[in-house]
Amino acid sequence: MPALTPYEQLEQEFRRLHAFRGALAVLRWDAAVTMPRGSADVRGDQLAALETECHAILTSPRLTRLLERAEANRQGLRDWQLANLREMRRERDHAIATPPSLVARLARAVAQAEAMWREARERNDFSVLAPQLDEVVKLTRHRAASLGQHLGLDPYDALADGFTPGLRSKEISAIFSALSRRLPGMVGEALELQSRKTAIPILARPSPARQRALCLDVLKALGFPFERGRFDGAERRFTEGVPGDIRITTRFEAADPFAGLLGALHEAGQGLYDLGLPPEWRDQPVGQDRGMALEESQSLLLEMIVGRSRSFVSYLRPLLEKHYAATGPEWSEDNVYRRLNAVARGPIRMDADELTYQAHVIVRYELEQRLLSGELPVRDLPGAWNELMDRRLGVCPASDSDGCLQDVHWALGSFGYFPSYGIGAVIAAQLWDSLRESVDRVDELIARGEFAPILDWLRDNVHGLGARLEVPALVSHATGKPLSVAPYLRYLERKYLTDW
Amino acid sequence: MPALTPYEQLEQEFRRLHAFRGALAVLRWDAAVTMPRGSADVRGDQLAALETECHAILTSPRLTRLLERAEANRQGLRDWQLANLREMRRERDHAIATPPSLVARLARAVAQAEAMWREARERNDFSVLAPQLDEVVKLTRHRAASLGQHLGLDPYDALADGFTPGLRSKEISAIFSALSRRLPGMVGEALELQSRKTAIPILARPSPARQRALCLDVLKALGFPFERGRFDGAERRFTEGVPGDIRITTRFEAADPFAGLLGALHEAGQGLYDLGLPPEWRDQPVGQDRGMALEESQSLLLEMIVGRSRSFVSYLRPLLEKHYAATGPEWSEDNVYRRLNAVARGPIRMDADELTYQAHVIVRYELEQRLLSGELPVRDLPGAWNELMDRRLGVCPASDSDGCLQDVHWALGSFGYFPSYGIGAVIAAQLWDSLRESVDRVDELIARGEFAPILDWLRDNVHGLGARLEVPALVSHATGKPLSVAPYLRYLERKYLTDW
Repeated sequence: MPALTPYEQLEQEFRRLHAFRGALAVLRWDAAVTMPRGSADVRGDQLAALETECHAILTSPRLTRLLERAEANRQGLRDWQLANLREMRRERDHAIATPPSLVARLARAVAQAEAMWREARERNDFSVLAPQLDEVVKLTRHRAASLGQHLGLDPYDALADGFTPGLRSKEISAIFSALSRRLPGMVGEALELQSRKTAIPILARPSPARQRALCLDVLKALGFPFERGRFDGAERRFTEGVPGDIRITTRFEAADPFAGLLGALHEAGQGLYDLGLPPEWRDQPVGQDRGMALEESQSLLLEMIVGRSRSFVSYLRPLLEKHYAATGPEWSEDNVYRRLNAVARGPIRMDADELTYQAHVIVRYELEQRLLSGELPVRDLPGAWNELMDRRLGVCPASDSDGCLQDVHWALGSFGYFPSYGIGAVIAAQLWDSLRESVDRVDELIARGEFAPILDWLRDNVHGLGARLEVPALVSHATGKPLSVAPYLRYLERKYLTDW
Repeated sequence: MPALTPYEQLEQEFRRLHAFRGALAVLRWDAAVTMPRGSADVRGDQLAALETECHAILTSPRLTRLLERAEANRQGLRDWQLANLREMRRERDHAIATPPSLVARLARAVAQAEAMWREARERNDFSVLAPQLDEVVKLTRHRAASLGQHLGLDPYDALADGFTPGLRSKEISAIFSALSRRLPGMVGEALELQSRKTAIPILARPSPARQRALCLDVLKALGFPFERGRFDGAERRFTEGVPGDIRITTRFEAADPFAGLLGALHEAGQGLYDLGLPPEWRDQPVGQDRGMALEESQSLLLEMIVGRSRSFVSYLRPLLEKHYAATGPEWSEDNVYRRLNAVARGPIRMDADELTYQAHVIVRYELEQRLLSGELPVRDLPGAWNELMDRRLGVCPASDSDGCLQDVHWALGSFGYFPSYGIGAVIAAQLWDSLRESVDRVDELIARGEFAPILDWLRDNVHGLGARLEVPALVSHATGKPLSVAPYLRYLERKYLTDW
């Protein structure tokens, strides 16, 4: 047996890493869905041991040596292997950039901040969280600086690169500026249009079993492969697992017959993405998804663009009759469509509609950069938040809980994460534009519940690429055009203004 | 911070090992209960990576060095720590005795033998399995020799020590000889007694939901702690997990209203044992269960001794009415009791009653020793099996599937395992004898569904000891007497002869 090349040895190490991460995914899913409530302490030990092992693999001197030798000997490597090598390097650099002492301090600070975040929310008082959040911000600043130095990036870009590989704040800012110029006017016009005919409230309260049965019919039509995936009701919606074993959940709400379904569509978008990743690279970095913004784009494409379209509502009507015994004017296609696409200015991001959502993201993007640079002291966050929400959306939160305490991300040290929500929506619209050019009569297909051609296009042009290209290159490759905000704005204009 | 002693460093390493094993347990449970069917390949990679890591921890030169240093410095260690050190050594010796090349060859041979075992059973033809089983036997012979050398034991004893720590084949043979002298006569007498009044068949087919509801009521009465455990229906019954997160399953059968319940009792016995292990040693070897024979004793104590007693049937009657709408003479306490304790000579171990079960075990014990020593060539197994079944039980299997192909154990390389089934029953009866001396009016308590005093006694005298003592010492400690077959024979005589 000839000795393995450095590159081949790297593939072996990352295969091991992938197996441990897969085990972590099952443990997390189990903790959220099937674990006995009292077993959290045991599970915590298991997760910590596996995470430590993953970090040890990535930061071992042997892996660094192998990377250096493989990079010095690229000849003979194919395109996919070269991309794999680049992604191995990215993972190692991200892992090694934070020294172990900082990892430990951050873990402690984040655990405390998360607990204080819960208490601050309950007591509706940001000052309860402020000291712990201040500590997290300071440590994250160190982390961003160290990461930036290793990656040759600005500190903020280095953090964002973990969620949207290859996209920099210069481009993110340009996209968000374009949105900030156009969206406030559109929101005003849409509200005016919608006020002329408001949706009739839907008061039905279908049981979780009925909501689940509806979701199952829709997921089957979408081609969700139940032989390699699961769908469950849970406390919160999420996607967990590895390609080859993907599990999605949704949260059923008694008072909202659509919340569970829309959550299922959102997670199915990500689940189908993961299940469409290139199987031959399943256990290598290049075979993984292309980060948060891409995952979000697949979620929003299904939940927002397909799932709230007129043709989808048309497809849904017989299912609503079958599972919810839906009769009466409130269940007319037109009314359901208006109900699903109602625009409203509100303080809460998670409740926001498609049109006002970006303002929530942009506010957070601006604030997290100022927090990290030190320009905005943590104690001044509530005031700055409320002022910016007012400026960007015309909404002034009535309290901290409805304001800067609503999201846990910063308490967890997740800075640079929020932009991927907004960029994901922009990417979704650009992909949809190209998909409509390639797939004939998409609306008719959707109305008939024939989703296979849509999935096929996404598989061929997005899912099957794995992490071979960075985000901007992947979008160009899939659509033939550079990442641009234009298709997104056109889509919103048509939907909320022209066609309303 | 003072440097950790070698012993403390060992505790740290075994804590890590325990976390990985806990992850393995969740992955195995998930594979049997919740995993999508098509994800077995992904799961295989995860299990293999974790098992390899566990083996690497146990066989690392560092661990061996730490063990040697800790053993040379025992002063200051308390009893539990000394026992922990002994168990650490046992685990390391078992792991290191099999060289990696043999581990790999055994894994391959076992995978092939398991597949051929399935085919041989389907085709009812032992010769389909014979070549692969021969390979497994040869490799296991090497393994037993190497293990025996490391542990200073005979090869067979070295294998059995993995399932029944501290018990040797000399003692096992003595127990089985005593049973072989007395049981055949008892079986004949019991069959004669039972033929005078046979049980009326019970033809009800309660739905799995009803069977499950009955089981839940019984498990709650037993004190099964659902906040740290789960109960599910599955393809096969098993217990999986770690102390602090124990999951039991049973298999519901449409044609047998009691099979699911008795399976649940069997697994609950093991689950309650695991949940009663000393919590302060939860993540150390000394805090684990005391091996297969002890686990089996706890299972049989609940399933056979308690669960098939007259007083338990009396407790069960109202629940049978509640969940199965049980009326009619076939549901009388006397008839249900006769039905649960009917004796019959049959070829299948898994279907055997309490009185004929030991013969099945003893046949396997004798044959596996002869297979390992080479005295019995694998190709001659069917004939030897049938001859011995006839001699020990008066039953001649009609085919290989009803004979030497019924159990998968040997194909999996599990030699030395079978005795623990039989020894477990003997231990259960001895524990029950002592428990009855300490706990007043046990039968009345059972009839009222008050199981706490029984559990308390088992916690105090068995569960709470963990792996502090070896099997013979544990039995002496719990009962005040050396391990003996006398209480078991007395129990069977009373139940099946005197009191029938």
